[in-house]
Amino acid sequence: MNPHVIGIDFGTNSVRALLVDAFTGEEVCSSVYNYCYGLAGVIGDDNNPFVARQYPADYVEGLLAVVDALLQKAELMPGFSRDQVKAIGVDTTASTPLPLGDDARPLCLRRELADDINAMAWLWKDHSAHDEADEIIRYVKDQGLDWLDSYSGWYSPEWFWAKILRCARISPETANMAATWVELSDFIPAYLAGITDFRDIKRNACAAGYKDMFNNGYPEPAKLAMLSPELERIAAGLPSVVVPAGRSIGHMRQSLTMHWGLPDDCVIAAGLIDAHAGAIGAGIAPGSLVKNIGTSSCDMALLPAGSGIKAIPGISGVVSDGIIPGFSGVEAGQAAVGDILNWYVNRALFRDGSSPDEKIHRELTEKASKYRAGQTGLIALDWMNGNRNILMDQRLSGLILGQMLSTTPAETYRALIEATGFGARVIIERLKEYKVPIEHIICCGGIAEKNTLFMQIYADIFNMPVYVASSSNAPALGAAIAAGVASGIHRDFDEARRCMIAPPRRSFKPDAHEAQVYEKLYGIYLELQGAFGTGKKDNYLYPAMKQLLELKRASNTMSSS
Amino acid sequence: MNPHVIGIDFGTNSVRALLVDAFTGEEVCSSVYNYCYGLAGVIGDDNNPFVARQYPADYVEGLLAVVDALLQKAELMPGFSRDQVKAIGVDTTASTPLPLGDDARPLCLRRELADDINAMAWLWKDHSAHDEADEIIRYVKDQGLDWLDSYSGWYSPEWFWAKILRCARISPETANMAATWVELSDFIPAYLAGITDFRDIKRNACAAGYKDMFNNGYPEPAKLAMLSPELERIAAGLPSVVVPAGRSIGHMRQSLTMHWGLPDDCVIAAGLIDAHAGAIGAGIAPGSLVKNIGTSSCDMALLPAGSGIKAIPGISGVVSDGIIPGFSGVEAGQAAVGDILNWYVNRALFRDGSSPDEKIHRELTEKASKYRAGQTGLIALDWMNGNRNILMDQRLSGLILGQMLSTTPAETYRALIEATGFGARVIIERLKEYKVPIEHIICCGGIAEKNTLFMQIYADIFNMPVYVASSSNAPALGAAIAAGVASGIHRDFDEARRCMIAPPRRSFKPDAHEAQVYEKLYGIYLELQGAFGTGKKDNYLYPAMKQLLELKRASNTMSSS
Repeated sequence: MNPHVIGIDFGTNSVRALLVDAFTGEEVCSSVYNYCYGLAGVIGDDNNPFVARQYPADYVEGLLAVVDALLQKAELMPGFSRDQVKAIGVDTTASTPLPLGDDARPLCLRRELADDINAMAWLWKDHSAHDEADEIIRYVKDQGLDWLDSYSGWYSPEWFWAKILRCARISPETANMAATWVELSDFIPAYLAGITDFRDIKRNACAAGYKDMFNNGYPEPAKLAMLSPELERIAAGLPSVVVPAGRSIGHMRQSLTMHWGLPDDCVIAAGLIDAHAGAIGAGIAPGSLVKNIGTSSCDMALLPAGSGIKAIPGISGVVSDGIIPGFSGVEAGQAAVGDILNWYVNRALFRDGSSPDEKIHRELTEKASKYRAGQTGLIALDWMNGNRNILMDQRLSGLILGQMLSTTPAETYRALIEATGFGARVIIERLKEYKVPIEHIICCGGIAEKNTLFMQIYADIFNMPVYVASSSNAPALGAAIAAGVASGIHRDFDEARRCMIAPPRRSFKPDAHEAQVYEKLYGIYLELQGAFGTGKKDNYLYPAMKQLLELKRASNTMSSS
Repeated sequence: MNPHVIGIDFGTNSVRALLVDAFTGEEVCSSVYNYCYGLAGVIGDDNNPFVARQYPADYVEGLLAVVDALLQKAELMPGFSRDQVKAIGVDTTASTPLPLGDDARPLCLRRELADDINAMAWLWKDHSAHDEADEIIRYVKDQGLDWLDSYSGWYSPEWFWAKILRCARISPETANMAATWVELSDFIPAYLAGITDFRDIKRNACAAGYKDMFNNGYPEPAKLAMLSPELERIAAGLPSVVVPAGRSIGHMRQSLTMHWGLPDDCVIAAGLIDAHAGAIGAGIAPGSLVKNIGTSSCDMALLPAGSGIKAIPGISGVVSDGIIPGFSGVEAGQAAVGDILNWYVNRALFRDGSSPDEKIHRELTEKASKYRAGQTGLIALDWMNGNRNILMDQRLSGLILGQMLSTTPAETYRALIEATGFGARVIIERLKEYKVPIEHIICCGGIAEKNTLFMQIYADIFNMPVYVASSSNAPALGAAIAAGVASGIHRDFDEARRCMIAPPRRSFKPDAHEAQVYEKLYGIYLELQGAFGTGKKDNYLYPAMKQLLELKRASNTMSSS
């Protein structure tokens, strides 16, 4: 009768629960609940395409439904009993902050605020706070503050303080009613634990460190006052310490243990960001880089605590205890990976829509796999959504070079995959430069699981083994592992990993010849990156992409005036 | 009863005859004959994709058929009589050389050589002599010869001496049987005039000057000997003078005047290259640049004879009396224009072939016309077929810059059109730099006639009026005009132009705002051209395109071995 743990993964459109044997890592069963408010859980604003909100009732209803279903399924398994479930871990999208009242309940669940989208959760992909993010960056720079030191000087419109500032600006009465703002990854554990006073809510080190400017403390309230008195008030109510992954934030509230028939002492683990939970579920350890490859990529690695390195230029986050306690968690990423291929297939090909996208992706992948390194004659820059890997410049754009009158779509498709590989290698090289040990790559996410061409090209470009994580539910598994540690079943994450994570489902070894050719192509990529992406003296091509954006903007302004 | 002239245009797939009123320029009627040997007149070689030949019987049969038909049509016109036809002019593709016997008849019309494709006409687009062209270029450079001075140091595999050298190498017995080689634009007039001794064939200044290294004389035979004794022998048999456009090479032979019922003294004008005849038919004059825009572009202008300029760096031909006597004819061009758009629609879009190409071109043109200058955010280099405008480098390739995840095919299509406009402007600027007067542009060819978006973008990029030539049969009209001058109906080309050429059918004026934006984009184009196209010191991007080609070649070699 092995102890079991549950991991619950709150995604953009659904919530998934996974029941795991804490000794063997066996994924016993899982259940999924699709959000029902808005469009697949996302509430937009017809007047502002950047707005993306969620109605917290979806979280609560989803949580109850998904665990109900999970446990019903589990009971069909011979030998399972509900009292084996020792702990629950949670991961969520981030930064997805929501305003709460004094009672730790979401503001928008109050009847009078039910229609106020600013009182809802501000979903990670809400970009309405772009001006506020820029304002924060400028303010930090002008005042010489250290708030963005571990973020390479950048702050995203997707993140906590930018969103709160935006709310204070556009809906001051809503902002004023908030006792606090909380990351979704803290709200769910607090809800499970039955917290009823906002001051008792624990903040997880992961979201606090990577999104909320926590770095040995949140920003000093008095210094936030100049941005907005609201930010000062919220910061003043935040705790001085945060809780790393694998710690308990309390036991499950009695109403839920009774409803689910779980043990009274069922532990609630501190929350995690989904990508970081995914890194744990994929088996992150010193020496490995975990790449979560989807529409964009999120890359994570561990830096030994004693390294003394607090920040890495161009790398979006270095956070002490940010992924696993005892290490600095390093988070990097690419602004677009799958999105570039999706752009190519969905937008760039002038299709009439008669064939499904997936069919085109399959056909192009199959044709592209017939080429060897260098055979397309093409090279591309993967900056179609700006550059967040080391250049941190949203105002960069794409480039494809080497077309001949014989160039085919499969060649272009391959060149675009390669471009994302070169972009990924730039991150790897930068991390190595700053002493982050990287001996192999573990990939997870849809592309990693489905596209072997991608993985082989990556192995050849990195000249390093590339593995595909064993679990398809890496985030939920990671949350479950955190629960295993939080409940004391495992002493630490290292022990938990050995017990609970199966060997990679596939591995890709670099081909020596291909790697040699890619070394040359990577040299060209670096020249292009230097020319178009860096503002060094005498670099006459650097202005090109920005000038094009300026001209586009000016032209759009003229057209709409 | 105005005098009439006939222009006959020998194209790649057909021959067209045009009857013109020599006083008014009225195009009375025309007729077309489609070649019937090979594939639409082109004979290939399954073992060598570069081979493209023509069977001269097509020329002779086509000539007879097309004039028969023309005169039959003309007789239906009230008041026309055959004795009004005072002269015939001819233009043909070039360089399309064919070997002749002593009797001035094509070698391959001999029964024993009927199957020898090397004894046929070597069509302009036969590229099998690429090695021989390179050999000639190297030889000229090594020996310090001046043969390529007016060609910017370049010699094309498409041209006369490269093809003869190729024949001498691969089929010495055929080469040995040739009394001479003659351009098609000299063969037809000689045939019409009834020449029966190869020594009596006149060579036209146009083909001789632009393709055959005639520059105050052909290359010295002794100096050709080191390349091949065959070249020496052929050169020794060539005349020391050539005949410019608008001169008579004799009267029509009696058998033909009798067959067609034409006057005994019907004049045969010296031949012309089709593109150059097109320039005349489009109304070339000092101050105008004629652009013949099709799959590639051929640009022509006139430089006053007294300018002292013998060559223009990067411009493929500056030939004294090459287009119109009394001027240096300047010929430039772009390696691909329509071909780039055709590549995009036919190859780059991964279409399933259910919609015809023309429909896609129309749809993309319509959508692309909705944008203003700069609005696509894109810029491209028009080098998908190498660069022949001022860089003279076949080993350059394409580039498209500025893609975002929102970039559409119409935006890319527009950027490709603009790229050809920037490439065209590079030629204009270079010509102006060398004192070629250019006040307006006259365009002819299919794209000019059909695509107003192209023409407006060109006017805006050039910041100069762009006209579309009045005649859709500019080459045949030009040949007819040459006949009008050769027969003395007109004193010179200037007088002939005033009488025979109608005002442009359309004109496009630059838009001041668009021109201003394109000025900036052209600046970026020049930076890209400098970076990727010129081997200046410290230019670290220059090797990129060549390295990609090298890697492609190496990879193809590996794959096929």
